Amino acid sequence: MKRAAVLGAGSWGTPFAKLLADAGTEVTLWARRPEVAQAITATGANPDYFPDLRLPDLVSATSDPALALAGADLVVLAVPSQTLRANLAGWAGLIEPDATLVSLMKGIELGTTKRMTEVIVETAGVDPDRVAVLSGPNLAAEIAAEQPTASVIACLDAARAAAVQKAVATPYFRPYTNDDVVGCELGGAVKNVIALAYGMATALGFGDNTKATLITRGLAETARLGVRLGADPLTFAGLAGLGDLVATCASPLSRNRTFGEHLGRGESLEQAQAATRSTAEGVKSCLAIRDLARRHDVEMPITEQVELVCHEGADPRVAVTALMSRETKSE
Amino acid sequence: MKRAAVLGAGSWGTPFAKLLADAGTEVTLWARRPEVAQAITATGANPDYFPDLRLPDLVSATSDPALALAGADLVVLAVPSQTLRANLAGWAGLIEPDATLVSLMKGIELGTTKRMTEVIVETAGVDPDRVAVLSGPNLAAEIAAEQPTASVIACLDAARAAAVQKAVATPYFRPYTNDDVVGCELGGAVKNVIALAYGMATALGFGDNTKATLITRGLAETARLGVRLGADPLTFAGLAGLGDLVATCASPLSRNRTFGEHLGRGESLEQAQAATRSTAEGVKSCLAIRDLARRHDVEMPITEQVELVCHEGADPRVAVTALMSRETKSE
Repeated sequence: MKRAAVLGAGSWGTPFAKLLADAGTEVTLWARRPEVAQAITATGANPDYFPDLRLPDLVSATSDPALALAGADLVVLAVPSQTLRANLAGWAGLIEPDATLVSLMKGIELGTTKRMTEVIVETAGVDPDRVAVLSGPNLAAEIAAEQPTASVIACLDAARAAAVQKAVATPYFRPYTNDDVVGCELGGAVKNVIALAYGMATALGFGDNTKATLITRGLAETARLGVRLGADPLTFAGLAGLGDLVATCASPLSRNRTFGEHLGRGESLEQAQAATRSTAEGVKSCLAIRDLARRHDVEMPITEQVELVCHEGADPRVAVTALMSRETKSE
Repeated sequence: MKRAAVLGAGSWGTPFAKLLADAGTEVTLWARRPEVAQAITATGANPDYFPDLRLPDLVSATSDPALALAGADLVVLAVPSQTLRANLAGWAGLIEPDATLVSLMKGIELGTTKRMTEVIVETAGVDPDRVAVLSGPNLAAEIAAEQPTASVIACLDAARAAAVQKAVATPYFRPYTNDDVVGCELGGAVKNVIALAYGMATALGFGDNTKATLITRGLAETARLGVRLGADPLTFAGLAGLGDLVATCASPLSRNRTFGEHLGRGESLEQAQAATRSTAEGVKSCLAIRDLARRHDVEMPITEQVELVCHEGADPRVAVTALMSRETKSE
């Protein structure tokens, strides 16, 4: 890839721009707010996310999407999931004719229950072969700190997957490729919901036996949904399934787990939002994932309980206890 | 089941005897040392393991195996893995003709590379249908504390599996059944080796991205070996695979993870043994598992590296770094 545009200078877009530059790829980082782009240009750091992270010289910043996209053969989308459609509608005409589009987003669109790559194909009017997803056990703060990390790039077009792989590979970041876009994307989206449940269980004082069971069953319900939607079941045993889920649940840096802990301590959704100054992705996605599961007649008990706690005021202790006491005879 | 004998009053046998009693099953707990059996009889607690754990009245103790096994239709084996063959040789003639034998052990026999149920079948001279294994995310200390826990009982004979299930089910302990003895047993044994690597990575300061990748690849190499030996690949995605591995790696109570942390801090095997006053199961098993893998031509890079650190004096930092930088093109 000659030049990349990273659209979104948030908690993942920012260290991802650094990663591309570390891999030798020239990057323009688009920030929604002009003052953020100006600050990055002036200081070489993003004042809002990882302010101590020095962005390499190969990274430039702008708040003008036309400037970011001109000449970019790699377009990395890293905006909040629920804003993707509106953002991309404005950008579609600016994207180079043969550019590869990579989604870093891990949500499901509310209302439509569409995956991010589906929204991209539809809104940008591009062939599905041109759209990839990058996912895995990829806590952004650790990548910013250059901790050894592995990841998966999924694309229907193997040549594009390999080109993206080359554009982001560094000694600390090892991307693998596969063609299971659906599986990688669902693994990333559902894990946020499971991490909310994990956070609740943590705050409620449940032990590692209980929490490991939650992870196991969470991955099982993710795989059930994925397989119904055409994913390869093996994807869920890999880095974009199990790997991402375990990293997110294990890390106190995870926003979804942390948000779940607030809920588990008995805070309302509004109190948890105030305390974390954000809404964790899984809070919104659990609604869309629940709808998707019901539409395809897939049982997702953890997602159902998380939705009840987040949006119907259910007691997290009752929800977690209900999950642990489900009657089943064999696994 | 009318009456159970639990053979081995160690860190798992002791709370397991309580569990059986809590489920309404009468238990005789056999302790190797007469003074331990006497102390349990006198005080209702095991002075060596969980001394604050009050054993229910349905638990009695003895150091006489004949007394423990007479009339026991459920025989639970919970001795150190490498002592099983010698112990069982002395007990074989005392086991009731139609008793069900359940292994709680998670090792592989050195030299023979046999699984514990294979040693049981061979040494006790019983039909494989009579032998079960119980495994899952089952940290003993949490079960002693009655934390909600799920588990798997695997037996070729579904009726026996169901009978064992009934004998151990309590509101805090939910056993599921399946027939994949090989898969459950290998999941439990290999996870100790992976937990050693996880402990090393923890002590070396690696982040959750790295450690989640280690868990993912650890489960993958476990499944590779398992499938080669006839296990159902789905077992490794369940409680006895993923569940057990995640609980063991997550918990600071895990002896294998803790032992790995000592090694990761640069201590020798002897120093780690002195510091933990034990040898973690994975230290011995990694030799047998490596031999088993080589014999069946299965690649197990994590097990290979753990063996090098434990027994060949390899530097854990070099070992973990080698694992993280293996060249692969697709998952």
